[in-house]
Amino acid sequence: MKNKKPLILITNDDGISAPGIAALVEVMKTLGDVVIVAPDKPQSGMGHAITINSTLRINKVNFYDVSEEYSCTGTPVDCVKLAVNKIMHRKPDLCVSGINHGSNMSINVIYSGTMSAAVEGAIESIPSIGFSLCNNSIDADFSASKNIVKIIAENVLKNGLPKDVCLNVNIPNLKLSEIKGIKVCRQARANWVEELDERKDPSGKPYFWLTGKFENFEEGNTDTDVWALDNNYVSIVPTQFDMTSYSAIVELEKWKF
Amino acid sequence: MKNKKPLILITNDDGISAPGIAALVEVMKTLGDVVIVAPDKPQSGMGHAITINSTLRINKVNFYDVSEEYSCTGTPVDCVKLAVNKIMHRKPDLCVSGINHGSNMSINVIYSGTMSAAVEGAIESIPSIGFSLCNNSIDADFSASKNIVKIIAENVLKNGLPKDVCLNVNIPNLKLSEIKGIKVCRQARANWVEELDERKDPSGKPYFWLTGKFENFEEGNTDTDVWALDNNYVSIVPTQFDMTSYSAIVELEKWKF
Repeated sequence: MKNKKPLILITNDDGISAPGIAALVEVMKTLGDVVIVAPDKPQSGMGHAITINSTLRINKVNFYDVSEEYSCTGTPVDCVKLAVNKIMHRKPDLCVSGINHGSNMSINVIYSGTMSAAVEGAIESIPSIGFSLCNNSIDADFSASKNIVKIIAENVLKNGLPKDVCLNVNIPNLKLSEIKGIKVCRQARANWVEELDERKDPSGKPYFWLTGKFENFEEGNTDTDVWALDNNYVSIVPTQFDMTSYSAIVELEKWKF
Repeated sequence: MKNKKPLILITNDDGISAPGIAALVEVMKTLGDVVIVAPDKPQSGMGHAITINSTLRINKVNFYDVSEEYSCTGTPVDCVKLAVNKIMHRKPDLCVSGINHGSNMSINVIYSGTMSAAVEGAIESIPSIGFSLCNNSIDADFSASKNIVKIIAENVLKNGLPKDVCLNVNIPNLKLSEIKGIKVCRQARANWVEELDERKDPSGKPYFWLTGKFENFEEGNTDTDVWALDNNYVSIVPTQFDMTSYSAIVELEKWKF
């Protein structure tokens, strides 16, 4: 093998021009050969959506001085599928998504395009990580995040990941010196409440904005991602795509159909 | 209480005019008071997408002669959020989604708008079921499905469901007399391969259609949904939204960061 540098696929859901992906690219260029396939526009909240009722396009771009970089008209999951099936000549050693502008802790994992791209990487048997900074602003400061991203990515490149699992990494919005450490956690049971802001258009007809208040149902528990972040730790939740509830199988097998 | 009939919310991802939702409505009207909030256009493959970068509208319609019915400009998950937060006056006793035109077995659960609506119901602590018939055709025959749907919905209304779990029900494309029974299963480990069909537009520029071949990685195993359907059973996979891999937590806690 002429080239032993790890091959790293980068995507996100805020779009290829977001500062968060720029920070991620900067770190990954120190670790390997980088290919970027990222949405050409914001795709937040796209979850695991794929494009099946219309077509997909990719366009070669030149923002980041890496091996190959493309913007894509599709969702974050489409980007991973296109990268793995059409663009990359071998399976990447690592797939990273982010750095998201905003938290993907707890139930947000399921709505998040950033995390769905990482989950898609895992479905393709690629060690995959979604990174999010708990700051929604376009002007968020990613300098501490870059240190954290590097530590975690190096560990994954060295150790690999358990089968069929990716990582959901959330980083508190703090200076590096204020971050207490990195905690492996479980996804907190939480939800969004009061979710719809109803307004009237100029002709008086109603329309709605999705919004809402995040409510943590596990205030006391110290093993969740929400607790870790509230207490100035980076949270890592190992995340799987097997959605089977094994305990419920036992219960339902007692039913008489 | 004047009215003790169960309150049932119906949605889908094929759109409010699809024959599959008509079949579901027909059955649910025999079981309770029905409210429909369903997408105004096909939303297959939308996964757990929500609409956060644009607005949502609902329109009162009158297709099915039920208590209330609305078409919605958003995704299946948006429909559940709107129904629960804005339209329904109390929490429904049951949320059903489908009947999907096409299988949502195995990994398809994660891409499916039908199942994501059911998962959203579970997040809202509503007993929820996604129903899918293994036939993609608009002319699919739902007559056997209606029997199966009724049996399973009656059981859920009677027994409730385990906490934070919904059901992914897939029905083989067979006559009722050919269906061998109902099996509680786990989600098979499978994936889509050769996923992109590359074409040229009239000006010679490439574009892509997502497509692919379904590949089951668990040929021998008899406890999966794929096996059940291949062997003429209805499959029920209890499905959870906690995506934490608890076994991986143990492994990752050994890492030195």
